[in-house]
Amino acid sequence: MQLPKHVTLKEVGPRDGLQNEKTHITTADKIQLVNLLSQTGLNYIEVTSFVHPKWIPQLADAVEVLQAIKREKDITYAALVPNMRGLERALQADIDEVNVFMSASESHNQNNINKSIAETFPILREVVTGAKNEHKNVRGYISTVIGCPYEGYIQPEKVLRVTDKLLEMGVDEISLGDTIGVGVPTQVESLLEELLKRYPTEKFAMHFHDTRGTALVNIMKSLDMGITKFDSALGGLGGCPYAKGASGNIATEDLLYLLDEMGIKTGVNMKSLLEAAHFIEQKLGKTVASKQMAIVRNEGSANVL
Amino acid sequence: MQLPKHVTLKEVGPRDGLQNEKTHITTADKIQLVNLLSQTGLNYIEVTSFVHPKWIPQLADAVEVLQAIKREKDITYAALVPNMRGLERALQADIDEVNVFMSASESHNQNNINKSIAETFPILREVVTGAKNEHKNVRGYISTVIGCPYEGYIQPEKVLRVTDKLLEMGVDEISLGDTIGVGVPTQVESLLEELLKRYPTEKFAMHFHDTRGTALVNIMKSLDMGITKFDSALGGLGGCPYAKGASGNIATEDLLYLLDEMGIKTGVNMKSLLEAAHFIEQKLGKTVASKQMAIVRNEGSANVL
Repeated sequence: MQLPKHVTLKEVGPRDGLQNEKTHITTADKIQLVNLLSQTGLNYIEVTSFVHPKWIPQLADAVEVLQAIKREKDITYAALVPNMRGLERALQADIDEVNVFMSASESHNQNNINKSIAETFPILREVVTGAKNEHKNVRGYISTVIGCPYEGYIQPEKVLRVTDKLLEMGVDEISLGDTIGVGVPTQVESLLEELLKRYPTEKFAMHFHDTRGTALVNIMKSLDMGITKFDSALGGLGGCPYAKGASGNIATEDLLYLLDEMGIKTGVNMKSLLEAAHFIEQKLGKTVASKQMAIVRNEGSANVL
Repeated sequence: MQLPKHVTLKEVGPRDGLQNEKTHITTADKIQLVNLLSQTGLNYIEVTSFVHPKWIPQLADAVEVLQAIKREKDITYAALVPNMRGLERALQADIDEVNVFMSASESHNQNNINKSIAETFPILREVVTGAKNEHKNVRGYISTVIGCPYEGYIQPEKVLRVTDKLLEMGVDEISLGDTIGVGVPTQVESLLEELLKRYPTEKFAMHFHDTRGTALVNIMKSLDMGITKFDSALGGLGGCPYAKGASGNIATEDLLYLLDEMGIKTGVNMKSLLEAAHFIEQKLGKTVASKQMAIVRNEGSANVL
């Protein structure tokens, strides 16, 4: 087994986690959540989204949250940005990294963004150019890289075509999302084999949802293929509001347990992370889908928190 | 990735699943559960336990259940047998396979069986000899093969020592149990490397609990090392009543999803399996911890069941 010595966890809970939650989280609570996450040792936090509040009402306070959080110097604070109007607001809020997004599946792109893949490229190019002019890092999310709720299995070549375009625009890193959590390691292997023929591993992060319990097996396969950056959400929060059956991201604390026990360094402290997960669990008023949090509840929070 | 073409799923739900459930399941419901499982394509079902009802009251009706189930000719019906009194009852109930058990950890063996490891061997030897005299197959469970709630990490040599003894007694197959679900793939690798130096892969089945979400990554590692037999419990039921923090077995349907999607044959039908899981979920009156069952509930049972 070829395992890296160090892995970077990219925390997407405040954005990908909360965007699909029906329980209203106050601006003050979002700020506290990000501040708690900033104390865990994470060095990347996706804080919010500049998608129009009509689509994601939970994150309508993006500017306020970004302006009020206490920033730590070693942490990159990122946000999702769909278009030039979003970029203006993100820059106004002094974002560190601009995250654009689209799908590898034509139907999912149409359903999620209301545009074809071809129509999406020029919009993203404008945002990437605008962000680069302001010397911002840009991340490109590609969703439905393995399966699509409308089209089923997505061929790796489709993902490669979108990857080519995004990297050519100047995107710094691609996050490959198994948005509906259908993938298995053999499919991850086919996908990465195709992409790594042309690009180095450093260009990619993997973003797995745990809908069918396969997120960690897919992460293990990705690690074995040299990938060292993974998206995750504390408490296993999240999901895609437009993808039927999609459930949460892999829980950061469950991924951290696996990496810790295999001796792979992340810099993240489990106890601080569980405190942040406990905080948002209380605010959401529901039991989050994380194995580590289940253990905390079973053993009594006094022991762990 | 080296993957086998065929895997055998050994269903332990009626025994390892139910033994730790507080909700009383009637004898008629247990019989129906086993009969439903017999229609799924599984060829191995651990039906019950002959541990004294003082310790496992839920399975006090072991003989009645075994005598009333409708047996299919290609299925092995097994039961847990702790001693000669248990063996007598199991033979009276015409069991196909006799399953003995002990721990690799001295403290867990003491807590679970109330005897030292050295004191346990002669008791098991008597049972194995008695079963073999009746031409029965014998399986040996070794629990806490990676971690123990009292001793922490268990060295592979301790597991090897117990394995040597059980195989020397005449046990046909060893099921290696990560009873408290703490293991990670690097530990599974160390354990299997040690055992496979001396014995062929066919001698072993792996038995993972999913307490920390690592059951499937450990199964992937085991598959990659040539293991083709895995214990699992429908609905992710189960746990060890004497091991703090232990939660359910890997859910048969979640393991089946992974294997199906990787093109590994098991002979098990997902729809029939979900029907059995749905049946026991209703009888237990609680939400079972299985990703596939969560999808069934989200999408509405009409679509899937």
